Amino acid sequence: MIYEKADILTIGAGAGAYPGAFRLAKAGKKVIMIDTKGVMSGNCLAEGCVPSKALRQAASLYKYIKKSHLFGLKANVDFDYKSIIAYKDNVQKLRYKQHDQELNEALPNLRLIKGKASFLDEHNVFVQSDDKELKITADSIIIASGAKPFILPIEGNNYCMTSSDIYKLKPTLDYLPKSMVILGAGYIALETATMFNQLGVKVTVIQRSARILTEMDERFALKLQSMFNPSIKIELNTKLIKIQKDSTGYSVFYEQNNTQKNVVGEIVMMALGREPVIPEGSKALGLEITKKGIMSNAAMQTNIKHIYSSGDINGKSMLFHSATRQSLVAAHNILAGNVPIDYMDYSCVPNSIFTFPEAAFVGILPSVAKINGIDIMETSFDLAYDAKSQILNEDVGEIRQFYDSKSGKLIGAWVIGEEASSIIGELGVMIQLGATVKDVANYANQHPSVAEGISKAARKLL
Amino acid sequence: MIYEKADILTIGAGAGAYPGAFRLAKAGKKVIMIDTKGVMSGNCLAEGCVPSKALRQAASLYKYIKKSHLFGLKANVDFDYKSIIAYKDNVQKLRYKQHDQELNEALPNLRLIKGKASFLDEHNVFVQSDDKELKITADSIIIASGAKPFILPIEGNNYCMTSSDIYKLKPTLDYLPKSMVILGAGYIALETATMFNQLGVKVTVIQRSARILTEMDERFALKLQSMFNPSIKIELNTKLIKIQKDSTGYSVFYEQNNTQKNVVGEIVMMALGREPVIPEGSKALGLEITKKGIMSNAAMQTNIKHIYSSGDINGKSMLFHSATRQSLVAAHNILAGNVPIDYMDYSCVPNSIFTFPEAAFVGILPSVAKINGIDIMETSFDLAYDAKSQILNEDVGEIRQFYDSKSGKLIGAWVIGEEASSIIGELGVMIQLGATVKDVANYANQHPSVAEGISKAARKLL
Amino acid sequence: MIYEKADILTIGAGAGAYPGAFRLAKAGKKVIMIDTKGVMSGNCLAEGCVPSKALRQAASLYKYIKKSHLFGLKANVDFDYKSIIAYKDNVQKLRYKQHDQELNEALPNLRLIKGKASFLDEHNVFVQSDDKELKITADSIIIASGAKPFILPIEGNNYCMTSSDIYKLKPTLDYLPKSMVILGAGYIALETATMFNQLGVKVTVIQRSARILTEMDERFALKLQSMFNPSIKIELNTKLIKIQKDSTGYSVFYEQNNTQKNVVGEIVMMALGREPVIPEGSKALGLEITKKGIMSNAAMQTNIKHIYSSGDINGKSMLFHSATRQSLVAAHNILAGNVPIDYMDYSCVPNSIFTFPEAAFVGILPSVAKINGIDIMETSFDLAYDAKSQILNEDVGEIRQFYDSKSGKLIGAWVIGEEASSIIGELGVMIQLGATVKDVANYANQHPSVAEGISKAARKLL
Amino acid sequence: MIYEKADILTIGAGAGAYPGAFRLAKAGKKVIMIDTKGVMSGNCLAEGCVPSKALRQAASLYKYIKKSHLFGLKANVDFDYKSIIAYKDNVQKLRYKQHDQELNEALPNLRLIKGKASFLDEHNVFVQSDDKELKITADSIIIASGAKPFILPIEGNNYCMTSSDIYKLKPTLDYLPKSMVILGAGYIALETATMFNQLGVKVTVIQRSARILTEMDERFALKLQSMFNPSIKIELNTKLIKIQKDSTGYSVFYEQNNTQKNVVGEIVMMALGREPVIPEGSKALGLEITKKGIMSNAAMQTNIKHIYSSGDINGKSMLFHSATRQSLVAAHNILAGNVPIDYMDYSCVPNSIFTFPEAAFVGILPSVAKINGIDIMETSFDLAYDAKSQILNEDVGEIRQFYDSKSGKLIGAWVIGEEASSIIGELGVMIQLGATVKDVANYANQHPSVAEGISKAARKLL
Repeated sequence: MIYEKADILTIGAGAGAYPGAFRLAKAGKKVIMIDTKGVMSGNCLAEGCVPSKALRQAASLYKYIKKSHLFGLKANVDFDYKSIIAYKDNVQKLRYKQHDQELNEALPNLRLIKGKASFLDEHNVFVQSDDKELKITADSIIIASGAKPFILPIEGNNYCMTSSDIYKLKPTLDYLPKSMVILGAGYIALETATMFNQLGVKVTVIQRSARILTEMDERFALKLQSMFNPSIKIELNTKLIKIQKDSTGYSVFYEQNNTQKNVVGEIVMMALGREPVIPEGSKALGLEITKKGIMSNAAMQTNIKHIYSSGDINGKSMLFHSATRQSLVAAHNILAGNVPIDYMDYSCVPNSIFTFPEAAFVGILPSVAKINGIDIMETSFDLAYDAKSQILNEDVGEIRQFYDSKSGKLIGAWVIGEEASSIIGELGVMIQLGATVKDVANYANQHPSVAEGISKAARKLL
Repeated sequence: MIYEKADILTIGAGAGAYPGAFRLAKAGKKVIMIDTKGVMSGNCLAEGCVPSKALRQAASLYKYIKKSHLFGLKANVDFDYKSIIAYKDNVQKLRYKQHDQELNEALPNLRLIKGKASFLDEHNVFVQSDDKELKITADSIIIASGAKPFILPIEGNNYCMTSSDIYKLKPTLDYLPKSMVILGAGYIALETATMFNQLGVKVTVIQRSARILTEMDERFALKLQSMFNPSIKIELNTKLIKIQKDSTGYSVFYEQNNTQKNVVGEIVMMALGREPVIPEGSKALGLEITKKGIMSNAAMQTNIKHIYSSGDINGKSMLFHSATRQSLVAAHNILAGNVPIDYMDYSCVPNSIFTFPEAAFVGILPSVAKINGIDIMETSFDLAYDAKSQILNEDVGEIRQFYDSKSGKLIGAWVIGEEASSIIGELGVMIQLGATVKDVANYANQHPSVAEGISKAARKLL
Repeated sequence: MIYEKADILTIGAGAGAYPGAFRLAKAGKKVIMIDTKGVMSGNCLAEGCVPSKALRQAASLYKYIKKSHLFGLKANVDFDYKSIIAYKDNVQKLRYKQHDQELNEALPNLRLIKGKASFLDEHNVFVQSDDKELKITADSIIIASGAKPFILPIEGNNYCMTSSDIYKLKPTLDYLPKSMVILGAGYIALETATMFNQLGVKVTVIQRSARILTEMDERFALKLQSMFNPSIKIELNTKLIKIQKDSTGYSVFYEQNNTQKNVVGEIVMMALGREPVIPEGSKALGLEITKKGIMSNAAMQTNIKHIYSSGDINGKSMLFHSATRQSLVAAHNILAGNVPIDYMDYSCVPNSIFTFPEAAFVGILPSVAKINGIDIMETSFDLAYDAKSQILNEDVGEIRQFYDSKSGKLIGAWVIGEEASSIIGELGVMIQLGATVKDVANYANQHPSVAEGISKAARKLL
Repeated sequence: MIYEKADILTIGAGAGAYPGAFRLAKAGKKVIMIDTKGVMSGNCLAEGCVPSKALRQAASLYKYIKKSHLFGLKANVDFDYKSIIAYKDNVQKLRYKQHDQELNEALPNLRLIKGKASFLDEHNVFVQSDDKELKITADSIIIASGAKPFILPIEGNNYCMTSSDIYKLKPTLDYLPKSMVILGAGYIALETATMFNQLGVKVTVIQRSARILTEMDERFALKLQSMFNPSIKIELNTKLIKIQKDSTGYSVFYEQNNTQKNVVGEIVMMALGREPVIPEGSKALGLEITKKGIMSNAAMQTNIKHIYSSGDINGKSMLFHSATRQSLVAAHNILAGNVPIDYMDYSCVPNSIFTFPEAAFVGILPSVAKINGIDIMETSFDLAYDAKSQILNEDVGEIRQFYDSKSGKLIGAWVIGEEASSIIGELGVMIQLGATVKDVANYANQHPSVAEGISKAARKLL
């Protein structure tokens, strides 16, 4: 057993941990990150946003080449899925290499140890590494152990791939299947569904609820769904029964309208949500733990004030960029002696869904407004009339905004359409900084850019 | 002679006029727009941003297809320039049609008359139409007569094309030249240069000054230039002598380092800036006119308070989106009885240069800060490290921010790189709403998106 | 019958009407205000804020002189209430004169007609003046007919004075009573109670509910009450039975704890709230009318879009300064052709209670936050530790702030103590402009001033 | 010699040090403050803002009592200056006691040692105490040694009192002189001049420059001067020659218009500005020192990054509340390992002059705007028309605002008149948060309060 002492220890080395860890190291603190993967970056880079967006980019370019005649070009296109995988893997490798370099530059203040961490007590953590055991004592601890795909305990779940199998380095799915059944209709399910659909795969989505994206606003979800390629089959109000191996792949059995049905796919993906990865010993410490994860307040402190939970593990806002900012909040508050000096602002974190078409939202949407008794003024701009969208031959989509009618302030917005994820930030910043409908309307957005519709929507109210 | 009476008359029907005209019509006012082209939309749609960005989009897709192997795709591509022109013309036609429809819906409050307007007095305008003469009396007048390419009085200028010849509907330049000489290195010159370079044309830029983009910040200009394809030849510190017809095209003669030189191009484009189109009779009214155009204050009023100058004609911020907002300011102030109720905010209007790579800036950059004695804090993020840029295989570029060190507020920024024009709005909104370096750093920008670098740059200062 | 045509007609000439009327006149519109009192200014100047605050100022100075030894001065003081009345009347007269002058300067665009207005139809109003009858046709109408004291239908209500009798020019109450019974415990009741208590009058407050200031936050109300001079008797949970004349004044009979009680006062004031003054014919027009008054949206438009309701008449925010801004919103929207261009922001209107001690609040307080499901972070600063309060020998009070814990933004605040009404504006502006707890903490408030506590309270959270 | 080790050492225990010291102690750091006076609080409490404002409060109440008939009261007033001194001393003692208590509560993390500190090297400070010598080693050091009255080397300067003699506990000036000559016309000079003038003293001000308040905006200074009681004699463009003792006091000789003049006063006050108190050894360390003091950047760091200069010592903004915030910035940056995490915002620090009448300003005023080439829009509201001012029988004054005409944002403002120091904060917050003229105009300030004029001034521009 090796004993070590650190100022700060992080459990995990993903976005919920490392940006804060770097800031702490910059302030001269000794920081140790423990990560089971042994590399800096969490799910996002390993099997989440980065590889999925790389695949999506290939699919997007494929789409554009296929319609390149609309731009006056003559092109033909084909692909070997393995080459796309190679491109994706290259992006991941490039970023891992970049992270390694950043980590090296932060030595010796900041170190990363591969291993599995479990709590001994409030200040001591046991680490089981490949070849050694450590006991690390730390003044403050950031739990950023993330989340993993939820596996439904159902017959045949072993036949199912998860997002990990599809997106990780050297993925299990290294060829293009002819057909695919996706269990679940959350954003990971739908991003995967629409992307493979773009690449020519026959996709069926099996969803328990009456609609897709149940954790998001209903109107938003239905609007987005209405713009999906209708060749994607979405089965709602279902109850999964089992998955069976089949001659050509797998057969998914489910109940719908009191009828048992089945659908066959060359592969089956299970995308039924994610669950927190709670470090061993957390419960014994008395940390407040719910189904969502290890609870923390706006200062990222758990109920034990020198222990923080940041990123997916607290289930508050399961996004890379949210985790990044959360880890910085934790770092700032650790520097301030665990007496908060910084707070997370959850009110304006953008949330993008990288489907075809792309969509994004931020802030309070109608369903939440209704629950909280907020009277809203609403306006929108149809991207069919947007110059940039027309130039892109991508004229489906809309920008929609919601204002608190008591204050006239922007409180929520969504964008569906090309560049949604690029311009949602502008709307989020408007919420962050308290913009009123006049502020939004008076801003002269760049022409031609999809962001023009932001001002145009607001101007309809003036 | 036909006599008409209107509440408001606009001279011009481009962005400096029509958004305001529509707002006035919506308020029940009788509005007449006079335009020599007889269609709604000014240079932007006729021969400016829209067609040039359409051509650029084709060139961009061409570029991406050529590098599509980097994304794991197998594609080949070719084009007939006439097909690209057809795509561009289609976009223009689509927007003209859309504008016609909007105009029809605004009838009878808002009408557009084709003709040339000249002032008779402060309230009366004479209009010479193709087939008739009108005298129109109006309570308020918006001059939005725009600007046109400046033609240098030099031997052989008749051989030169202007941006109009390249970008208008059914353009004069309807084939792809092998080589091109561009006179001037303003943004129109450079957008044209880099686009045709992408399409395989040999381009030479001849610039009088010691650097490109003389009206913009020097560091910005040099940084952008350093990212241009080096195959574009840029000749600085030159003095144009003449243009002569040549066997294979035209020969441009110029002096450089006291040496006479010449360069030959299949076509020559003159892009030496734009000059205001002053309506006849303006001077006689006593309107304040400078080399830049017809002066107006922040309420868009000229020195005659019921006459407004909006858009390119006042030379303050020669951009479509700026003109759009200016016309609304004018409209609001007309509604308020020519006693201002609205003011133009020039401090945060984004300005994009659609070259390859794309670039954009907003607010106060170092050169202006220096002149005004503003001490700045500076930070930047190199897009070589940006996930989205890496996914796009577009890793050249940067986001750079300038803060007033007295207040900590963001006062200026630039972005060079893919999506610059899409994310500059977020930085502009931050300036509009008074964001400090902490506000910028604390915002959790979407991952992966180029906008991430906005927060990352700010976080370096914290 | 005289016929007149106006662009805009206002029913009422108080704060809900005249600021807007002046703006409209400035824009060249012909505006007629109809007011039953025949003078510009509503309840505020006639019998509300202005005269009551003048009386309060006299009482405050009286208080300070009585404690002037604490400042090292030797003074004695007495008063004849009639002199205080004279001072109060002088302030009112000065302001009436000022308003007359302003009105004269606005002629002929703006005129005021004394009379009672009733609707004939959506555009026509009948005016019964002292000596003539008019029919006025107007394009747009602003209803700003205000509110009046609610008179409970109870035996002996004719013996009661209202705020009008106490505060109007040449008030009915022109001498200092020895004792006073006040029915109700709203802000008018309590301002009157604490002021006369300061002047030496024995005051009893009879309140139906279980607490004072039932329309305001409970914690705020109880905190304020705890700082009242304990010699003021406040009877809660009562039911009024009747008022009877008595040898020395009046006897108020009420039930409390199932027991009939009575209290005797030289005068009795009825202050049981205010009710809207609905112009005749309003209902017939189909205007949406509730117990609160004539409903209008954030653009101040009633359900008939060219008819506005502004000020006390809509019951939304019964304050002079709110009415002032509302009338401007209405004016702006009339100028914009009844297509809204401006909206009222109700989220940050300060609300002061000019009791002894003074108190003020703005925004969302805990009771409302709870109802709307807003999780708040709370902080406060005790004015006993405030330098300026100590200098003033006024060390009772507090500044309390409420932040939305999701966004970290200030959403509500109260101030109890000297200068509360002077500094509440700063807190309101912070809400208006979206200040976070960091913004509040980082502001360097003037030392020594009561506003220092604003930053100090916020700094406790950092 | 005693050796001690601290995390942080502060030289000085005034506002430039202690708020930061408390924050550091709250974070668990060991902090030692060294102060020559041996008590917490600098000049502000010892001989500055607090005692002078107490005296002013007595003078203000004296003024109000003398005019109490205007409020309908009958009062007479007299005073023994020693009693006023007693009141002033009491306020100071109360605050010292409060500070002692706060300090006790912060033990043992935070300690205060009475002594004189001098630098040994970058991390070591020698402290000469009354009875012992210490050497203290610290990781970070905050220099907050303040400033002291500048003493002009002139014949008879030993006869002059300084602000210290007038305002300190048990002041040298413990009786009311009949006459007073004040050398200098900065804010301390003028506050003293107008206060003693209120108390009946004959005051003459002798100023070298052509106007008063030379460090402030000229128009502001002249406007304020025009509202002074004309019985205060102000001699401008003078050159001091000497001070001589005289039978009835002192005779000040000076040259004016090439003529030698003299004026006699029972006492003479020298108020020619303040100079920094540079700790011994500072120069040897290589700290950047100018006439203004020890330079620091917006992070409060000197050129040696773990040494900070905060408060009067850096001469940037010599105000208690500015020093307070500066010390917090220093503390935050120390917590962050001397890598800045916080910056001082100097753009919106309010600056009040507690003369009769009171005045205050914030931000950029016309003289600075002119130098920096900022084009301003200006507006004002005359407090003669303000309801609250009329109620106070204080109708002299104005609120004046300056907007950047490029952005429409408020950049500066002044208030002259009763309550100036209470409402300037609202204007400062508007600058801090980037308010435009519309934001200012749209805010519904409390009626009746002097702050109403803030909105009213802005509304004139709309």
